[in-house]
Parts: sequence; structure tokens; C-alpha cells
Amino acid sequence: MSFTPHVLDRDLDIELIREVDVPPELVWRAWTTPELVTQWFAPKPYETPICEIDLRPGGRFRTVMRSPEGDEFDGTGCFLDVVDGERLAWTSALGPGFRPQAGPMPFTAVIELEATSSGGTRYRAVAMHQSPEDLKQHADMGFLEGWGAALDQLVALAKTL
Amino acid sequence: MSFTPHVLDRDLDIELIREVDVPPELVWRAWTTPELVTQWFAPKPYETPICEIDLRPGGRFRTVMRSPEGDEFDGTGCFLDVVDGERLAWTSALGPGFRPQAGPMPFTAVIELEATSSGGTRYRAVAMHQSPEDLKQHADMGFLEGWGAALDQLVALAKTL
Repeated sequence: MSFTPHVLDRDLDIELIREVDVPPELVWRAWTTPELVTQWFAPKPYETPICEIDLRPGGRFRTVMRSPEGDEFDGTGCFLDVVDGERLAWTSALGPGFRPQAGPMPFTAVIELEATSSGGTRYRAVAMHQSPEDLKQHADMGFLEGWGAALDQLVALAKTL
Repeated sequence: MSFTPHVLDRDLDIELIREVDVPPELVWRAWTTPELVTQWFAPKPYETPICEIDLRPGGRFRTVMRSPEGDEFDGTGCFLDVVDGERLAWTSALGPGFRPQAGPMPFTAVIELEATSSGGTRYRAVAMHQSPEDLKQHADMGFLEGWGAALDQLVALAKTL
């Protein structure tokens, strides 16, 4: 590992940890290639028609998610840390170029990938919040279920690559 | 230059550009050494009794400024980009570890240093905001005057190093 794992703050963070049976390289590719992100990012029946990625600190990370009813959720943040194949961090609190941006429940996400001895990946996703209230709201919105379902989709896609 | 200069958005950014007669290495040292920052960061008669620096993306940048009346302004943000001797970016919108944090008028600051042919530095400081209202408020608070006066103090200090 060439990164320092995020130290969890139980009052402000929520995390998903799972072992998956695809290697870190493929998980990384699925996370950082727009044409792949659109295929797994939103838990079905939601879709992700649009994804834009400028993979560097300060670079744009935009996703548009669409509900079955056609409502769209257009979110743009920026990457903060990019350690190839190992660690990806981005935030909704800053837009491209690190510009602050207003918005409800800002969060910073960190994805950490570690190869397992069996050729899979120890996958960790953390969302950091600014207050216990925001953490609760994010949890109540179904963060763990949503990110878990999206991860299942990512793994299924990675197996086809 | 090993960085891409920030592209100014006149509706959201404010900038200070000056040529100063100390080299980039000394300006950088004055900006990134806590015991030096405390000597120049706040325009007199304000003081900066405390400065904490963890000079890496996600690392803590804390300053406590004190007014002549003894009021203290304790601000903690985090660094976003550290290009040794050339470019320093940090934000008040995120705390250490990139955690979002609430606060009025969040801004991201970028300091860009370029050596001049005469041995000095072309110094550029930019503050980026999320709205024209925040820009106006920051400007009305005296951003340009304050950062200009602090830069004078920085240059005077750098000449003694």
C-alpha cells in the first residue's frame, strides 16, 4: 500500500468494506473510465446517463443519475487524491479547480483498494461529513445499501472486461 | 513552471499580482514554515500567534489571528496542492483529511510563484469563491489591501533569512 488509510471518525463517517473477487486494476478501471462508470454507478433501476472524469486533483467528476420516473440528479465535484490503482478521493464541497460550491450535505468520498492474496480486492468506501446530522441523513438515504448495490454492479461489469 | 496557472473567473475570483525582490525559494519558505508564517501572515496591528502546517494535500493549515483588542480568529483548512517552490493551494471549505466543514464565505486560495529574470518573484495570490456575493464580501473586507500588506511583511522578513 502506498497510501495511508483514512482513519474513521464514527461520529461523522460512514464506510462500506467488502472483499470482491476481481483484482484492484479492474475495480480502478471501472471507477475511472466514464464509459464504465455509466454502467454501474447508480443502483438499478436508477441509471447514470452521463459521467465526466478529469482524473487529477482538482479535476472534474460529474455524474448525472436518472430515476425510473425520469428525474435527474446532476452532481459535479472534484477529485482530491488519485493514487493509481489504490486510492481515489473526491468531494462534493469543491467544484473543478478546487472552487468551493454550495450544496446540501457536502461529503468527501474515499475509495481504498488493496489486493487480496486470492487475487481479489479488499474494497473500502468512506463518506466523510461535516456534522453528525449530515451523516445521519446520508445513512437514512440508504448510503450503505446504495453503494453496496452499485458495487455488485461494478463487480459484475469488471468480470466482463 | 511545472504547474498550470489558475484561470481567473472575474465573477468569482479576486487576485493580487506583484513582483517582489526576493526569490521564490524564500517566499515559499515564508509561506510554509509555521515559525515564519506567524511573523507576517496577519497585517499589523493584527498578529498571528499560532500557525500549524502539515504540508501535503489533505494536511492541516491552521492560523489564529488576533486583533489589537484581543479578539481571536481561529481558522483551520487543508492544503490541496503543494508544488514545491511554485504553487500552494488550500481551502477553508475542507478541514484536515479533506473533510467538509461548515463556515461562512468558504474560499480556496492559490499562491503561484514564478522566478523573474532579475532574481525576484512574480507573486500571484488568488481567492476563489462560490458566488459573486461571497466575492464581494471578501473584497469589501479588504482582501487586496490585507494580502498586500501581509506580502510586504513577508518580503521584509524574507530579506532577513
